[in-house]
Amino acid sequence: MTLFDTLQKPTLLLNESAARRNIHRMAEKARDQNVRFRPHFKTHQSIEIGEWFRPEGVTAITCSSLEMAEYFAAAGWDDITVAFPVNIREMDTINRLSGTIRLGLLVESSEALEVLQARLARPVDIWIKIDAGGHRTGLRWDEPEPVVALAKQAATSRNTRCRGLLTHAGNTYQFQGAESITPVYQEAVTRMSAARQALREAGLAACEVSVGDTPGCTLSPELGMVDEIRPGNFVFYDAHQLQQGVCRPEEVAVTLAVPVVHKHEDRREVIVYGGAIHLSKDFNQVGDRRDYGLPALVEGECWGEPISGAYVRSLSQEHGLVTIPGPEFDALKIGDLLCIYPAHSCLTVQVMRQYVTLDGRVIETLNK
Amino acid sequence: MTLFDTLQKPTLLLNESAARRNIHRMAEKARDQNVRFRPHFKTHQSIEIGEWFRPEGVTAITCSSLEMAEYFAAAGWDDITVAFPVNIREMDTINRLSGTIRLGLLVESSEALEVLQARLARPVDIWIKIDAGGHRTGLRWDEPEPVVALAKQAATSRNTRCRGLLTHAGNTYQFQGAESITPVYQEAVTRMSAARQALREAGLAACEVSVGDTPGCTLSPELGMVDEIRPGNFVFYDAHQLQQGVCRPEEVAVTLAVPVVHKHEDRREVIVYGGAIHLSKDFNQVGDRRDYGLPALVEGECWGEPISGAYVRSLSQEHGLVTIPGPEFDALKIGDLLCIYPAHSCLTVQVMRQYVTLDGRVIETLNK
Repeated sequence: MTLFDTLQKPTLLLNESAARRNIHRMAEKARDQNVRFRPHFKTHQSIEIGEWFRPEGVTAITCSSLEMAEYFAAAGWDDITVAFPVNIREMDTINRLSGTIRLGLLVESSEALEVLQARLARPVDIWIKIDAGGHRTGLRWDEPEPVVALAKQAATSRNTRCRGLLTHAGNTYQFQGAESITPVYQEAVTRMSAARQALREAGLAACEVSVGDTPGCTLSPELGMVDEIRPGNFVFYDAHQLQQGVCRPEEVAVTLAVPVVHKHEDRREVIVYGGAIHLSKDFNQVGDRRDYGLPALVEGECWGEPISGAYVRSLSQEHGLVTIPGPEFDALKIGDLLCIYPAHSCLTVQVMRQYVTLDGRVIETLNK
Repeated sequence: MTLFDTLQKPTLLLNESAARRNIHRMAEKARDQNVRFRPHFKTHQSIEIGEWFRPEGVTAITCSSLEMAEYFAAAGWDDITVAFPVNIREMDTINRLSGTIRLGLLVESSEALEVLQARLARPVDIWIKIDAGGHRTGLRWDEPEPVVALAKQAATSRNTRCRGLLTHAGNTYQFQGAESITPVYQEAVTRMSAARQALREAGLAACEVSVGDTPGCTLSPELGMVDEIRPGNFVFYDAHQLQQGVCRPEEVAVTLAVPVVHKHEDRREVIVYGGAIHLSKDFNQVGDRRDYGLPALVEGECWGEPISGAYVRSLSQEHGLVTIPGPEFDALKIGDLLCIYPAHSCLTVQVMRQYVTLDGRVIETLNK
């Protein structure tokens, strides 16, 4: 009896070897280029998977919330950047954490920095959030005055050590293939260097540059003039990264195994037990087509490559509608499993809250 | 100090009085029209909130998974329909549940029914899933042969009692206002009656008709020739129902309280701590605009109506980008709270996993 015979419900499968290879490859790249590797742990959210980074020499990590930082701090991680604009309603948690670890916080306004300076119990690292083209949030890279002002304000308190400039070049997610993504990554690095230069010219001490997005860090041969990278998604990749040309199918380390509950012969579509509460409602837009994941067949003790032309067309709370135009449709039976490459692995992990490895071991996360 | 002063992180707020009024109104409508009210508990997913239905005489409920059915069965609910095409990989759970409650299952293929008949330990109710226009799944209402065949097949085993025909007229979610939604609901009811008539003409015993979608059950003055209704979302409603004209703002019983972490003056946008992991990635498409929820200000001990013209423009894992074109933007400060009417309350509950009532009580769900 294989693992697949025992699965009854939607199950997040983890190919541990693939994940470990992904970790090794990114760690090696950073080592080779003498760049600190501060992986973002928001993708896997698991103490156990976090341990897989230690043999690669990783000692500093990134989290997306203070809650997540507390979870990993309890597991011995003592150098954590919370890569989210600081939430001044959580001063108690900040002061608790800064008592036990080296804590990095993101700041992009003098108001927030002022509150920190008034209420911090002890020193933290301050990273100034820069918008280098992603346009989500951050101070503009090409308007140095507010950046210089914030760095100067940080210097007025011993509790706010300005460590450097940080960006997330989220715009690499809009492009396809190394030829397009590498220049976008490099442009972000160049812009960050310009912002750092402005600080230097204002007489401020040397400061670090931190960047981090999986497409750029994976595909750009040169990481460039940066002090650290913070990719997260690379640990598992997903259908989005696959469709972007960032990874190969065998590098995708998680899929959602879902039971087939019905077949619609007329529309060559199967209904699976696996919906928005299992995959999340995130999707990829590929031309006119919106897909919520890519289905694969079980192959031996793992899953195969995505079925050609097939995709998850629609998700409701528990239902998935999977279009399979090719002959794979005919061979499927009610009760069979499909393995869905998730559109966005971070969110799938978040809703599933635990993994089952291909040898049947359960791995828990922050939320389980 | 109010509840709002104490909130540090994204928090799912529940207006208990509004939810209880929503429950009362729907229960009364069903009672008045002599229709069984079998509410779908997938929206609130909470034993405690389930108890609010008992004073209204509710004794039968709907769940979306066997796992959810087990959770509510443990709380004393003993007549449960799992409104999802039966997953034959979960026969053990089915046989466990059918030993303690009256269990209803959905079937739409002879293959699945055959497996049930071979492996059921004791009788269950069989509902034949009909597609009355929603086009998600189910047998076509206007092709009676497979429906009749399935009902006849069910009659060949004492463990598969054919109870009736069930549909989810999900297409009401595509329309706006009572004038459009009522005819769509009524059309589904008429189609279900036609399907039932075909069974009668084939000499099959009287069977029930079960329908249930919040827009139709809320807006249609007449529930029509049905035996039971199964709406779920009405308990809380949400921004989608509001924008469809199904409910009024004061009937929306949940919002997500989120801290403002930054303001972008140039684009009149605030960054909030509240992203896809708090609201889900579901959105409403209103013309060209895609919104992930509607922000409101705190007003006294509750939230106000949605801010005119404002909407959640984008969500990433933890970030929300909220556009506020009007003067409310200027008054907001970093650290203030916004209350987001979720695009889809069922999925927001699913990801948040617990509520805080306006008097500060924590209510847990299946997943917490």
